[in-house]
Amino acid sequence: MSVRVFVGARAVDAVPADDRGLAYGDGLFETMRAHRGDVPWWPAHWARLAAGAARLRLPLPDEAQVRAEARALLEGESGVLKLLVTRGSGGRGYMPPTKAIPTWLLSRHPLPVVPKTGLVLRWCDTRLAVQPLLGGLKHCNRLEQVMARAEWQAGGTESPSAPVVGYASRHGDAMTVRPQVADEGLMRSTEGDVVCATAANVFILRGNRWLTPAVDRCGIAGVCRRWAMDATGATEARLDVTDVEAADAVFLCNVVRGILPVARLGERTWAPHPLVVALQQRLAAEHPAFAPEYS
Amino acid sequence: MSVRVFVGARAVDAVPADDRGLAYGDGLFETMRAHRGDVPWWPAHWARLAAGAARLRLPLPDEAQVRAEARALLEGESGVLKLLVTRGSGGRGYMPPTKAIPTWLLSRHPLPVVPKTGLVLRWCDTRLAVQPLLGGLKHCNRLEQVMARAEWQAGGTESPSAPVVGYASRHGDAMTVRPQVADEGLMRSTEGDVVCATAANVFILRGNRWLTPAVDRCGIAGVCRRWAMDATGATEARLDVTDVEAADAVFLCNVVRGILPVARLGERTWAPHPLVVALQQRLAAEHPAFAPEYS
Repeated sequence: MSVRVFVGARAVDAVPADDRGLAYGDGLFETMRAHRGDVPWWPAHWARLAAGAARLRLPLPDEAQVRAEARALLEGESGVLKLLVTRGSGGRGYMPPTKAIPTWLLSRHPLPVVPKTGLVLRWCDTRLAVQPLLGGLKHCNRLEQVMARAEWQAGGTESPSAPVVGYASRHGDAMTVRPQVADEGLMRSTEGDVVCATAANVFILRGNRWLTPAVDRCGIAGVCRRWAMDATGATEARLDVTDVEAADAVFLCNVVRGILPVARLGERTWAPHPLVVALQQRLAAEHPAFAPEYS
Repeated sequence: MSVRVFVGARAVDAVPADDRGLAYGDGLFETMRAHRGDVPWWPAHWARLAAGAARLRLPLPDEAQVRAEARALLEGESGVLKLLVTRGSGGRGYMPPTKAIPTWLLSRHPLPVVPKTGLVLRWCDTRLAVQPLLGGLKHCNRLEQVMARAEWQAGGTESPSAPVVGYASRHGDAMTVRPQVADEGLMRSTEGDVVCATAANVFILRGNRWLTPAVDRCGIAGVCRRWAMDATGATEARLDVTDVEAADAVFLCNVVRGILPVARLGERTWAPHPLVVALQQRLAAEHPAFAPEYS
């Protein structure tokens, strides 16, 4: 990982030990798809960051400086760029400093493997708490996602040779243990609503209408989710497990991996759907990193 | 602030930039009352930390090393000692590393002012989400507490000359703005149950019975709360706003400031109660830092 750390406008060697991001997860982050040394969807990322910072009353560094540093870090390369902004140093105790100076980190990461076939999903046992105050924000209080992602080890299409975790079939003999592999897990709120995958948003097709869960009570308002809502005309809806299983097509999305068709969820399977293929093609036309020559 | 940082058993200069505590609040902490170079309630703190680490599957450093480093940092002094333990370095993404090496920080802080008179409390607007998976844990996902504590600036008994925040009396003319000062704020869950103060647990007296909110759905299982439950025979109960306002006595507690009688909450006032005074005396007898000669 290549990383640069700043306090306010100043480059520093390391994150201060009294940083409130470390103490309380008092910060926000953006994970961005970089392409040939820049971030094509930068304005959408910065707009989301600014909206989150306004809600948390978090000061932000200067956008022009952050973007210049991001370009310098990318050195013309493609991959994943992460920006983390915290409330900076503070005293012991929850009270935020009245004049906070943000700590921010830029880091560059390789692209994860994007499966060429549909994803295999599982249901996570870990639920998302309902907290309208933080709903939609990409903040740094992510223990729920960490615990959800720790529920399974193996990747389905990601790493087919990885060690498998056994589970008992829900339809039969409890002794029938079969390997469980999954690329991603779907999460529900504590109230039972389907919200998202651990690191992606989810869309379902019902007839000719696309639906996606609202993220005002929990979940993250993804930048690719916003794009996909505009591209599909999707509407927000409360969805339960049955709604997803009964869907005509399902996809996940995030800015790093784009539009990810879902092939399997438990016993349910889906064939590739032309509307999902068309959406992938539209993304490829609108975002250079997803153009066929780079995929 | 005097601080030492470690990765596993090794002292390091700074927290690594890829620390998961920074990225996701993926860690736990203990805030401890130190007295003459040691922590009298160390075993209770370590036991709570170990229980939390088991729930989060977080590796812990060696207890003997941590305690030795804590004593070295304290240099015979009294005050506040904070221990923060994170899951250590990890890759981008929520998946915890299979062999995590914990990052841990020890820091020493001055004692806050402990008011000599009863506390002035307020109700926080910020609610606590219900998340049984994390209930009771002193983890580092603390945005709710940060936002709650940011609701008011002034301390009541803490800093009577601090700038005041105006609020309209709920009983009269909306133009009757009076200064609002408060030492602490009480927090409710999103379901309306009273849970705790932003940085303390709460107990109420009803007749001759002490009650305190359960912390299995949200809130922190405080070390001083445990002591006070044993000392008073308090039972856990679901409490709403009316229960607190109708109480015969109220106190807050944490290990840093001990037993804190409450004198006012909104319009409601309480005179000093002999049972609370007796509990303070018992704490003074059992914990050397709270003995009268140090208070």
